[in-house]
Amino acid sequence: MTGILAGLRIVEGSAFIAAPLGGMTLAQLGADVIRFDDIKGGLDSDRWPVTKDGKSIYWAGLNKGKRSIAVDLRNPKGRELLSALIAAPGEGGGIFTTNMPARGWLSYEELSKKRADLIALNIVGDRHGTANVDYTVNAITGFPMVTGAVGQQGPVNAVAPPWDLATAYAGAMAILAAERHRRMTGKGQRIVLPLQDMALAATSALGYLGEAVVNQVDRPRYGNEIFGTFGRDFRTKDGRWAMICIFSDRHVDALAEAGGFKEAFARIEKEQGVDLKTDAGRWTARAALIAVIEPWVAKLTGDEVSAKLKKAGALWAPYLTFRELANDRDAVHDNPMFTVLDQPGIGRYPVAATPLQFGALPREAPKVAPLLGQHTDEILSGILGLSGTEIGKLHDEKVVAGPR
Amino acid sequence: MTGILAGLRIVEGSAFIAAPLGGMTLAQLGADVIRFDDIKGGLDSDRWPVTKDGKSIYWAGLNKGKRSIAVDLRNPKGRELLSALIAAPGEGGGIFTTNMPARGWLSYEELSKKRADLIALNIVGDRHGTANVDYTVNAITGFPMVTGAVGQQGPVNAVAPPWDLATAYAGAMAILAAERHRRMTGKGQRIVLPLQDMALAATSALGYLGEAVVNQVDRPRYGNEIFGTFGRDFRTKDGRWAMICIFSDRHVDALAEAGGFKEAFARIEKEQGVDLKTDAGRWTARAALIAVIEPWVAKLTGDEVSAKLKKAGALWAPYLTFRELANDRDAVHDNPMFTVLDQPGIGRYPVAATPLQFGALPREAPKVAPLLGQHTDEILSGILGLSGTEIGKLHDEKVVAGPR
Repeated sequence: MTGILAGLRIVEGSAFIAAPLGGMTLAQLGADVIRFDDIKGGLDSDRWPVTKDGKSIYWAGLNKGKRSIAVDLRNPKGRELLSALIAAPGEGGGIFTTNMPARGWLSYEELSKKRADLIALNIVGDRHGTANVDYTVNAITGFPMVTGAVGQQGPVNAVAPPWDLATAYAGAMAILAAERHRRMTGKGQRIVLPLQDMALAATSALGYLGEAVVNQVDRPRYGNEIFGTFGRDFRTKDGRWAMICIFSDRHVDALAEAGGFKEAFARIEKEQGVDLKTDAGRWTARAALIAVIEPWVAKLTGDEVSAKLKKAGALWAPYLTFRELANDRDAVHDNPMFTVLDQPGIGRYPVAATPLQFGALPREAPKVAPLLGQHTDEILSGILGLSGTEIGKLHDEKVVAGPR
Repeated sequence: MTGILAGLRIVEGSAFIAAPLGGMTLAQLGADVIRFDDIKGGLDSDRWPVTKDGKSIYWAGLNKGKRSIAVDLRNPKGRELLSALIAAPGEGGGIFTTNMPARGWLSYEELSKKRADLIALNIVGDRHGTANVDYTVNAITGFPMVTGAVGQQGPVNAVAPPWDLATAYAGAMAILAAERHRRMTGKGQRIVLPLQDMALAATSALGYLGEAVVNQVDRPRYGNEIFGTFGRDFRTKDGRWAMICIFSDRHVDALAEAGGFKEAFARIEKEQGVDLKTDAGRWTARAALIAVIEPWVAKLTGDEVSAKLKKAGALWAPYLTFRELANDRDAVHDNPMFTVLDQPGIGRYPVAATPLQFGALPREAPKVAPLLGQHTDEILSGILGLSGTEIGKLHDEKVVAGPR
């Protein structure tokens, strides 16, 4: 462990995205993150996408660099082992993160009896404790009703789960905030993070509630356009797509240069009485801008558009599919964040390390995800100090399990 | 300041979403976050949505609870003041976060001459330093090509910006990680976080690159369905929409109870030879499940569907528009996270505090966003120790400005 969080130990009882990704984020910064699961595997152990043999590529993606201990969660002895593990000493230990129901033996009340300065992060569905997932939380935020093409009926769901992602990273941050507090005061605490509140707070931060209340409007669908400035998808001659945006003066000039639009832009400014160097001007004149840019893109191949926009320093990007991304040289193969790993049971593919580059330390290469129970014995012996005989007995009694 | 991060001071040079939201996240936890802007306002000072008077609701949403100092960024004296502010002493001071070009006087090299243990977070577009925004980064992730209805041609952009959100919270976490490191070693450092790498790392974590490489497929569009388990939008008799999901055994039983589907589900299991209590079984039989659930929802009003699903404990949510959300009692008005604030120049609307509930301290109520330059004088005097005469001179010379 040589990362920025070396010395921190976090025990994680989790499933799906938010909690495992939060834990993995800390693991990729050098924390010792131990995920425990039932000996039969967690709720997400077989989650899709899977290989043709049914191995979960999903699980592998969200649990990289963690250690895994497999315990019979219904067995009181198994529960006792995990409680002891969660409360185990060490300056950076005594941190528990979970999105499982934190009741009974997993409640803060019970666990903190074993370690008074325990830090626990409980990710819950909403503030009432009702189950929620990114999809249900997203439904109430309002975003699905403004996503998708103009004229579309009904909701359009997000595929990249914004609220799981936000909860993962905000949860990881919260653990570090509580650990800072513990260093300063010696005190532990329980932190509650409701997935629904995370989504609502972000929706509030992004101005949507303010707009709805103050302007008394429901923002309509604007398709792929960027509300309040300029940006849209454009189709090339060879059927590729490019996202072209303007966020600043510099982007106006760059786009004008790339497409030879200087005179056309001046004409638009004159005809529409707007200044394209303002957000409001671009937004007002967007149809005229599209009328100039669209035919230009449509006459060029994707490669030609790319060369011109890149050379001029425009704000743009090509749209890729996942396979195109996986094969992309700049984004993946030449990107030092990625390493091709051989994930046992799954295969070789590029895997990302943390996107954070800390100047004080080199970035740690990504690690594979563990097999279920891969570290059961080393954790029982190394952290809980059990003897080989004791560990053997726990296996015999099926209280714990090694890798399947 | 009574939040969990009391004592921490962060100087922020930022615009748009990722950096301001990262700073606000820390401010809402009690850090003293000082945003500096040019006396004419930042790139995002007028960004839409705006009120009918052109005041930015967007800016207000992303800068709540910060202090604002307005300085002429082209004036060497102004730059000197800001350098001094960034490097100002204090145990929790000397932290700088920016997504502006961190070159010249704003480079880590220059700033750290004034304070050797400076921590700086530089959010950049990509690892080459090229400008990027959520929209351009999202284009290459692959997600727009699988978002939207089955049969849709071309990309569908996200409206809630997943990568800005991820970058904001991961950036806030990174500052706390570096501050921990400084406490332990006395050393500061520069942290670089490329927006594009953030998006690519998350796409990797979610399994999309692994799936593309190992299974050699481009996942098709599945509309609003949840890939690999069960979930979809359904339309009610009165034109409302509900997202209904199954992620666990319990949700199968709850949905069966809500709709009286017990026999229908048993028939589906028999006819299709699947187990609905597995992800694979639900995914395989999804058309049959939809054929049972869709007509049931279509015969009921939104209120009736809601009552039945809620009573049975199903995993579901209604789709709301932003205005409906703003008026929702449970999500907003009865939610202790929200407070109705009067944002100067904009008006009264519900504003969210942090979604994080730290057991050691009560949650701080949200605060309004500052006016541009609202705290110029108190910062110059309180942190930099300038006299009233010196401050007056800086105003006279137009090096700094107060609120407009």
